[in-house]
Amino acid sequence: MDEESAARLRDLRQSIDNVDAALIHMLAERFRFTQLVGLLKAQAGLPSSDKERESAQIERLKALAHDAHLDPVFAEKFLNFIVAEVIRHHEKIANESAT
Amino acid sequence: MDEESAARLRDLRQSIDNVDAALIHMLAERFRFTQLVGLLKAQAGLPSSDKERESAQIERLKALAHDAHLDPVFAEKFLNFIVAEVIRHHEKIANESAT
Repeated sequence: MDEESAARLRDLRQSIDNVDAALIHMLAERFRFTQLVGLLKAQAGLPSSDKERESAQIERLKALAHDAHLDPVFAEKFLNFIVAEVIRHHEKIANESAT
Repeated sequence: MDEESAARLRDLRQSIDNVDAALIHMLAERFRFTQLVGLLKAQAGLPSSDKERESAQIERLKALAHDAHLDPVFAEKFLNFIVAEVIRHHEKIANESAT
Protein backbone atom coordinates (compact mmCIF):
# COMPACT_ATOMS: atom_id res chain seq x y z
CA MET A 1 0.00 0.00 0.00
CA ASP A 2 1.45 3.41 -0.97
CA GLU A 3 1.81 6.24 1.56
CA GLU A 4 -1.21 8.15 0.23
CA SER A 5 -3.50 5.10 0.58
CA ALA A 6 -2.05 4.32 4.02
CA ALA A 7 -2.83 7.89 5.14
CA ARG A 8 -6.38 7.58 3.74
CA LEU A 9 -6.82 4.26 5.59
CA ARG A 10 -5.67 5.82 8.90
CA ASP A 11 -8.08 8.70 8.32
CA LEU A 12 -11.04 6.38 7.62
CA ARG A 13 -10.20 4.31 10.69
CA GLN A 14 -10.26 7.46 12.83
CA SER A 15 -13.80 8.16 11.53
CA ILE A 16 -14.83 4.55 12.22
CA ASP A 17 -13.46 4.82 15.78
CA ASN A 18 -15.48 8.00 16.32
CA VAL A 19 -18.66 6.37 15.01
CA ASP A 20 -18.03 3.33 17.24
CA ALA A 21 -17.73 5.53 20.33
CA ALA A 22 -21.08 7.11 19.39
CA LEU A 23 -22.66 3.66 18.85
CA ILE A 24 -21.45 2.40 22.25
CA HIS A 25 -22.88 5.43 24.01
CA MET A 26 -26.22 5.19 22.18
CA LEU A 27 -26.40 1.49 23.05
CA ALA A 28 -25.64 2.27 26.72
CA GLU A 29 -28.50 4.78 26.69
CA ARG A 30 -30.81 2.29 24.94
CA PHE A 31 -30.17 -0.34 27.62
CA ARG A 32 -30.90 2.22 30.34
CA PHE A 33 -34.35 2.69 28.76
CA THR A 34 -35.01 -1.01 28.21
CA GLN A 35 -33.93 -1.72 31.80
CA LEU A 36 -36.76 0.59 32.95
CA VAL A 37 -39.15 -1.12 30.51
CA GLY A 38 -38.11 -4.46 32.05
CA LEU A 39 -38.91 -3.21 35.55
CA LEU A 40 -42.34 -1.90 34.47
CA LYS A 41 -43.13 -5.20 32.75
CA ALA A 42 -41.98 -7.27 35.72
CA GLN A 43 -44.08 -5.16 38.11
CA ALA A 44 -47.14 -5.64 35.87
CA GLY A 45 -46.41 -9.35 35.33
CA LEU A 46 -46.13 -8.81 31.57
CA PRO A 47 -43.96 -11.15 29.46
CA SER A 48 -40.41 -10.06 28.48
CA SER A 49 -41.09 -10.39 24.77
CA ASP A 50 -43.74 -8.43 22.83
CA LYS A 51 -44.00 -9.79 19.28
CA GLU A 52 -46.34 -7.06 18.04
CA ARG A 53 -44.03 -4.26 19.23
CA GLU A 54 -40.99 -6.08 17.77
CA SER A 55 -42.64 -6.45 14.34
CA ALA A 56 -43.50 -2.74 14.30
CA GLN A 57 -39.91 -1.87 15.27
CA ILE A 58 -38.47 -4.08 12.54
CA GLU A 59 -40.70 -2.55 9.85
CA ARG A 60 -39.83 0.98 10.99
CA LEU A 61 -36.08 0.31 11.13
CA LYS A 62 -36.09 -1.36 7.71
CA ALA A 63 -37.72 1.75 6.26
CA LEU A 64 -35.18 4.02 8.00
CA ALA A 65 -32.33 1.78 6.79
CA HIS A 66 -33.63 1.93 3.23
CA ASP A 67 -33.65 5.74 3.34
CA ALA A 68 -30.10 5.79 4.80
CA HIS A 69 -28.83 3.30 2.14
CA LEU A 70 -28.16 0.67 4.81
CA ASP A 71 -29.04 -2.93 3.91
CA PRO A 72 -32.56 -3.44 5.41
CA VAL A 73 -31.80 -7.14 5.96
CA PHE A 74 -28.80 -6.11 8.07
CA ALA A 75 -30.97 -3.60 10.00
CA GLU A 76 -33.37 -6.43 10.84
CA LYS A 77 -30.50 -8.71 11.95
CA PHE A 78 -29.16 -5.83 14.05
CA LEU A 79 -32.48 -5.27 15.83
CA ASN A 80 -32.88 -9.00 16.47
CA PHE A 81 -29.36 -9.05 17.95
CA ILE A 82 -30.19 -6.17 20.32
CA VAL A 83 -33.66 -7.48 21.24
CA ALA A 84 -32.22 -10.90 22.15
CA GLU A 85 -29.95 -9.15 24.67
CA VAL A 86 -32.84 -7.02 25.97
CA ILE A 87 -35.04 -10.09 26.51
CA ARG A 88 -32.17 -11.76 28.38
CA HIS A 89 -32.04 -8.68 30.67
CA HIS A 90 -35.84 -8.61 31.10
CA GLU A 91 -35.96 -12.28 32.07
CA LYS A 92 -33.20 -11.65 34.62
CA ILE A 93 -35.19 -8.72 36.09
CA ALA A 94 -38.40 -10.82 36.15
CA ASN A 95 -36.58 -13.68 37.92
CA GLU A 96 -35.04 -11.31 40.45
CA SER A 97 -38.44 -9.70 41.20
CA ALA A 98 -40.00 -13.17 41.55
CA THR A 99 -37.49 -14.31 44.18
CA MET B 1 -50.78 -2.51 33.91
CA ASP B 2 -52.24 0.73 35.35
CA GLU B 3 -52.63 3.87 33.22
CA GLU B 4 -49.61 5.62 34.79
CA SER B 5 -47.32 2.65 34.03
CA ALA B 6 -48.76 2.32 30.51
CA ALA B 7 -48.02 6.03 29.88
CA ARG B 8 -44.47 5.57 31.23
CA LEU B 9 -44.00 2.54 28.95
CA ARG B 10 -45.16 4.51 25.88
CA ASP B 11 -42.78 7.31 26.84
CA LEU B 12 -39.80 4.94 27.20
CA ARG B 13 -40.61 3.31 23.88
CA GLN B 14 -40.58 6.71 22.19
CA SER B 15 -37.07 7.27 23.56
CA ILE B 16 -36.01 3.79 22.39
CA ASP B 17 -37.38 4.51 18.91
CA ASN B 18 -35.39 7.76 18.80
CA VAL B 19 -32.20 5.99 19.88
CA ASP B 20 -32.80 3.27 17.25
CA ALA B 21 -33.12 5.86 14.49
CA ALA B 22 -29.78 7.34 15.63
CA LEU B 23 -28.19 3.86 15.71
CA ILE B 24 -29.38 3.04 12.17
CA HIS B 25 -27.98 6.30 10.82
CA MET B 26 -24.64 5.85 12.63
CA LEU B 27 -24.43 2.29 11.25
CA ALA B 28 -25.19 3.55 7.73
CA GLU B 29 -22.34 6.06 8.09
CA ARG B 30 -20.01 3.37 9.50
CA PHE B 31 -20.63 1.11 6.49
CA ARG B 32 -19.92 4.02 4.14
CA PHE B 33 -16.48 4.32 5.77
CA THR B 34 -15.79 0.57 5.82
CA GLN B 35 -16.86 0.36 2.17
CA LEU B 36 -14.04 2.81 1.34
CA VAL B 37 -11.64 0.81 3.54
CA GLY B 38 -12.65 -2.30 1.58
CA LEU B 39 -11.85 -0.58 -1.73
CA LEU B 40 -8.43 0.61 -0.48
CA LYS B 41 -7.63 -2.90 0.79
CA ALA B 42 -8.76 -4.56 -2.43
CA GLN B 43 -6.67 -2.13 -4.52
CA ALA B 44 -3.60 -2.87 -2.37
CA GLY B 45 -4.33 -6.63 -2.32
CA LEU B 46 -4.60 -6.59 1.48
CA PRO B 47 -6.74 -9.22 3.25
CA SER B 48 -10.31 -8.29 4.35
CA SER B 49 -9.64 -9.14 7.97
CA ASP B 50 -7.00 -7.45 10.16
CA LYS B 51 -6.74 -9.28 13.49
CA GLU B 52 -4.41 -6.71 15.09
CA ARG B 53 -6.74 -3.80 14.29
CA GLU B 54 -9.78 -5.82 15.48
CA SER B 55 -8.12 -6.63 18.84
CA ALA B 56 -7.29 -2.96 19.39
CA GLN B 57 -10.89 -1.99 18.52
CA ILE B 58 -12.31 -4.56 20.93
CA GLU B 59 -10.09 -3.39 23.81
CA ARG B 60 -10.99 0.25 23.16
CA LEU B 61 -14.74 -0.42 22.92
CA LYS B 62 -14.71 -2.53 26.08
CA ALA B 63 -13.09 0.39 27.95
CA LEU B 64 -15.67 2.84 26.50
CA ALA B 65 -18.48 0.42 27.40
CA HIS B 66 -17.18 0.12 30.96
CA ASP B 67 -17.19 3.92 31.37
CA ALA B 68 -20.74 4.12 29.91
CA HIS B 69 -21.99 1.30 32.20
CA LEU B 70 -22.65 -0.96 29.21
CA ASP B 71 -21.74 -4.65 29.64
CA PRO B 72 -18.23 -4.92 28.08
CA VAL B 73 -18.95 -8.52 27.03
CA PHE B 74 -21.96 -7.25 25.07
CA ALA B 75 -19.81 -4.48 23.51
CA GLU B 76 -17.39 -7.15 22.28
CA LYS B 77 -20.25 -9.29 20.88
CA PHE B 78 -21.61 -6.16 19.18
CA LEU B 79 -18.30 -5.33 17.49
CA ASN B 80 -17.88 -8.95 16.36
CA PHE B 81 -21.38 -8.82 14.89
CA ILE B 82 -20.58 -5.63 12.93
CA VAL B 83 -17.10 -6.79 11.87
CA ALA B 84 -18.52 -10.06 10.48
CA GLU B 85 -20.79 -7.99 8.22
CA VAL B 86 -17.92 -5.68 7.23
CA ILE B 87 -15.68 -8.64 6.30
CA ARG B 88 -18.54 -10.07 4.20
CA HIS B 89 -18.70 -6.71 2.35
CA HIS B 90 -14.89 -6.56 1.93
CA GLU B 91 -14.75 -10.05 0.48
CA LYS B 92 -17.51 -9.10 -1.96
CA ILE B 93 -15.53 -5.98 -3.02
CA ALA B 94 -12.31 -8.03 -3.36
CA ASN B 95 -14.10 -10.64 -5.50
CA GLU B 96 -15.66 -7.94 -7.67
CA SER B 97 -12.25 -6.22 -8.20
CA ALA B 98 -10.67 -9.59 -9.01
CA THR B 99 -13.14 -10.35 -11.79
